Amino acid sequence: MMTDTRTDRITYGDIVSVYIDDKRNFVIRLVRGGILGTDKGFIKHDHIVGKNYGEAVRTSRGIKAYILPPILVDKLKLLRRTTQVIYPKDLSFMIYLSGITPGSHVVEAGVGTGFLTLSLASFVGPRGKVYGFDINEKRIKILEEALSFLGYDDRVELWVADIRRLQIDLSGVDAVFLDIPDPWNAIQTIHRVLKPGFPAIIYVPTVNQVEKTVVALREHGGFISIHTYELLLREYDVSKGATRPQTLMIGHTGYIVYARKVICK
Amino acid sequence: MMTDTRTDRITYGDIVSVYIDDKRNFVIRLVRGGILGTDKGFIKHDHIVGKNYGEAVRTSRGIKAYILPPILVDKLKLLRRTTQVIYPKDLSFMIYLSGITPGSHVVEAGVGTGFLTLSLASFVGPRGKVYGFDINEKRIKILEEALSFLGYDDRVELWVADIRRLQIDLSGVDAVFLDIPDPWNAIQTIHRVLKPGFPAIIYVPTVNQVEKTVVALREHGGFISIHTYELLLREYDVSKGATRPQTLMIGHTGYIVYARKVICK
Amino acid sequence: MMTDTRTDRITYGDIVSVYIDDKRNFVIRLVRGGILGTDKGFIKHDHIVGKNYGEAVRTSRGIKAYILPPILVDKLKLLRRTTQVIYPKDLSFMIYLSGITPGSHVVEAGVGTGFLTLSLASFVGPRGKVYGFDINEKRIKILEEALSFLGYDDRVELWVADIRRLQIDLSGVDAVFLDIPDPWNAIQTIHRVLKPGFPAIIYVPTVNQVEKTVVALREHGGFISIHTYELLLREYDVSKGATRPQTLMIGHTGYIVYARKVICK
Amino acid sequence: MMTDTRTDRITYGDIVSVYIDDKRNFVIRLVRGGILGTDKGFIKHDHIVGKNYGEAVRTSRGIKAYILPPILVDKLKLLRRTTQVIYPKDLSFMIYLSGITPGSHVVEAGVGTGFLTLSLASFVGPRGKVYGFDINEKRIKILEEALSFLGYDDRVELWVADIRRLQIDLSGVDAVFLDIPDPWNAIQTIHRVLKPGFPAIIYVPTVNQVEKTVVALREHGGFISIHTYELLLREYDVSKGATRPQTLMIGHTGYIVYARKVICK
Repeated sequence: MMTDTRTDRITYGDIVSVYIDDKRNFVIRLVRGGILGTDKGFIKHDHIVGKNYGEAVRTSRGIKAYILPPILVDKLKLLRRTTQVIYPKDLSFMIYLSGITPGSHVVEAGVGTGFLTLSLASFVGPRGKVYGFDINEKRIKILEEALSFLGYDDRVELWVADIRRLQIDLSGVDAVFLDIPDPWNAIQTIHRVLKPGFPAIIYVPTVNQVEKTVVALREHGGFISIHTYELLLREYDVSKGATRPQTLMIGHTGYIVYARKVICK
Repeated sequence: MMTDTRTDRITYGDIVSVYIDDKRNFVIRLVRGGILGTDKGFIKHDHIVGKNYGEAVRTSRGIKAYILPPILVDKLKLLRRTTQVIYPKDLSFMIYLSGITPGSHVVEAGVGTGFLTLSLASFVGPRGKVYGFDINEKRIKILEEALSFLGYDDRVELWVADIRRLQIDLSGVDAVFLDIPDPWNAIQTIHRVLKPGFPAIIYVPTVNQVEKTVVALREHGGFISIHTYELLLREYDVSKGATRPQTLMIGHTGYIVYARKVICK
Repeated sequence: MMTDTRTDRITYGDIVSVYIDDKRNFVIRLVRGGILGTDKGFIKHDHIVGKNYGEAVRTSRGIKAYILPPILVDKLKLLRRTTQVIYPKDLSFMIYLSGITPGSHVVEAGVGTGFLTLSLASFVGPRGKVYGFDINEKRIKILEEALSFLGYDDRVELWVADIRRLQIDLSGVDAVFLDIPDPWNAIQTIHRVLKPGFPAIIYVPTVNQVEKTVVALREHGGFISIHTYELLLREYDVSKGATRPQTLMIGHTGYIVYARKVICK
Repeated sequence: MMTDTRTDRITYGDIVSVYIDDKRNFVIRLVRGGILGTDKGFIKHDHIVGKNYGEAVRTSRGIKAYILPPILVDKLKLLRRTTQVIYPKDLSFMIYLSGITPGSHVVEAGVGTGFLTLSLASFVGPRGKVYGFDINEKRIKILEEALSFLGYDDRVELWVADIRRLQIDLSGVDAVFLDIPDPWNAIQTIHRVLKPGFPAIIYVPTVNQVEKTVVALREHGGFISIHTYELLLREYDVSKGATRPQTLMIGHTGYIVYARKVICK
């Protein structure tokens, strides 16, 4: 049995999550003299330093703000939204289906805002590798900065490249993730880079893209166990005697297509 | 850029996934002279040995069977169902929300059939640790065998114990997962074992359990960011010109309650 | 204020619903000497005659069976399933959207098993009219018998005809309902038979049919307010302290396309 | 076969639906000199008079506006929202389950904004009757005006009264509809006013209300075939090659409880 006796005193340079309430939840890096401004008052970074995680400070208006260690869902807030993102309900299922483990090497295209890139980096760990591709140089730059800020430089390698016409010598990866408008044009590539028996996970927003992708995977002949999924997430408002789903929900994000590479002879 | 030149010749002792079609998908360990019997003919283990992953063998009736490396979703098939299981759509979201990374130490109770235990073991990796608890000794034994078979002995520690009255000295874990009938009676324990700022993820099948759990978390005072989720998964039948969701779906499995520990003063 | 003093003594010739439990719910016409056999024992029709609605009789094995007046949902059980049916969740929304009232004249094609025909007949009432079309003569015959049995001969007129090539002189109807494989080939017809401003309601099982139908409606130019809907129905298992959705649900039946005719110049 | 040769020339006093697009859809009564102002320009009522349904007029800015006959879904727009409303997806299923036909007599409480009242009035027709109750006099007044405007005075009778303590002599109705916070306190009343064998349809927003209602119905003993339903409606964005569900949807409105009265001895 383990007893963790580390002290987690927060110090300058740490990235922390500041939680006032579900709508006022900020992820910041602590700098000497820094200020976090909110509509509930401001907080001096200097007041956070020296605290332990889980403790609260007060804003200038006396409102409690808890200081939390930044876990994966917090870290997503550090990414600048340069395009439509993939939501946690889909990210989680894609990652689970992929079967990746610490140390896995994976390919991802297009990286876009990087919600999936960051999530993959978190799950493959320091000895894993995420090869990320996007045709948009600016997006790659913005994402690279955020990943570097999080200390993920070593485990993520980003390339400005078109996965559909990949020239570079890359093969034997444990999973491929695609979020591009025309995945059917990347089928050859994903078959080439995947280790035999391992899965491709493709995310597309329309039913037409699902159909074209699945038909292309079947026609290629080198994929089996082809499945298409859709996830709906409902959040509940819970209180004693008055529990019910929330009125508004996201009715649609995208579809997830799953397939495993085999060797076709 | 990486080129993987390892050869993955399959040999005796390997655990492989044998895929005939989506309904005939078996996970077996290869033994000399072994036979896999199916309603599409049998396969001799000896014929699988020497193949590479992704290649196919033929059953005695000439049907193609692909040999795949066992990834997480395959491995779940090795567990003997001793109780209601948690499905991948829920497992994946619970694990994602938890923020665990390679090396994380987590607590899980009750382990039941072990779908979550095995999934956690896969994601925390060889340097992580899953402390699993269940009051049913037989279940623990059955699960221990399966995990040992998979080589997960070092990363999983199973205990016959009641999480609600945990006597052992355990604290500072990165996440707690509960799947017990009365999580509201384990709130003290989960607060004690969690590292400050880290999350508890609770799975319950009825709305009443959701309500009691959320009320107990609020009354305890040491939890923030309390959320309740429900996921619906639809699978699609895709074919050119005739794409539609499948007729039958699982309409309900359970609800997921999420909360993060803070230090209450 | 109304007091209903009618006595509803049940007599021979009446159609009644016999309810033992949700799985043993029968709709029968009472005949002298008749017997209703069930796996919970049999019931003599003669024992039902003379009862009032809402009263119970006992089966030969002493099990209670309630005698209920047959309302719409009961009457559906009288139809012999000759093809895939439309479910109440969809029937109800289609009828609601159509705006039909007592006395409305409507067109329906194809009638199939007749769940929609019967429902429409019930809502338009004795002074309304349902013109039903199907290319399958046998289906029409089977449905005609059932409707006649229910006394709906006057309000339903069934034709063995192809709605896509309708030769007969029919126009000015208050709503058109389509459940055919290729509604896009019937757009001209439905525009011709509809009263200006009134709606067409089209039911199709695949997304591809939705797309082709909507595109055809738009290209025709004589339809506005085009909408596509999908309904999911969950049933709940309710008991004190253990309320939850049922495990299995129908994940998909079909999509509903709605459009209103305008005069295009 | 019927040919409808009526001419539907629109005249002063008519209630018409003016449709510019899905967001600009107005229901108005035409008066001499009247003006309909919209953000796409104004329309003079005088320009609408003399048109046929389905024809278009132009706004002052030259935008096309179609003149449609007001069907049920249009008429709902005439009601002033005095409280949370029941949505068409639920209204339609409640009405379908109730089995009402032209001429039915039904009880409804509380009427609230009147979406259900108006819908019931439309389906029971001129020879049917809706007895509506609400404890809020102002709401009743507002609703009465709207129903009178629509010519439904004869078929709807509204009362300022508490259904839970109904003193008036009313019985033998074909269906009872409840949308009150505590339906479990009205079980006695609904059993008294219902004709034996006929259904009660109860709408409640929370799971707790569902549970209390179902338990009360069971404990009363005079109800069978008790079911609880929930409906989810998704709307689709359809276009050639890019069809998908809309991003936002209503995730929850309420639950529908259904039960049929029997005579308990």
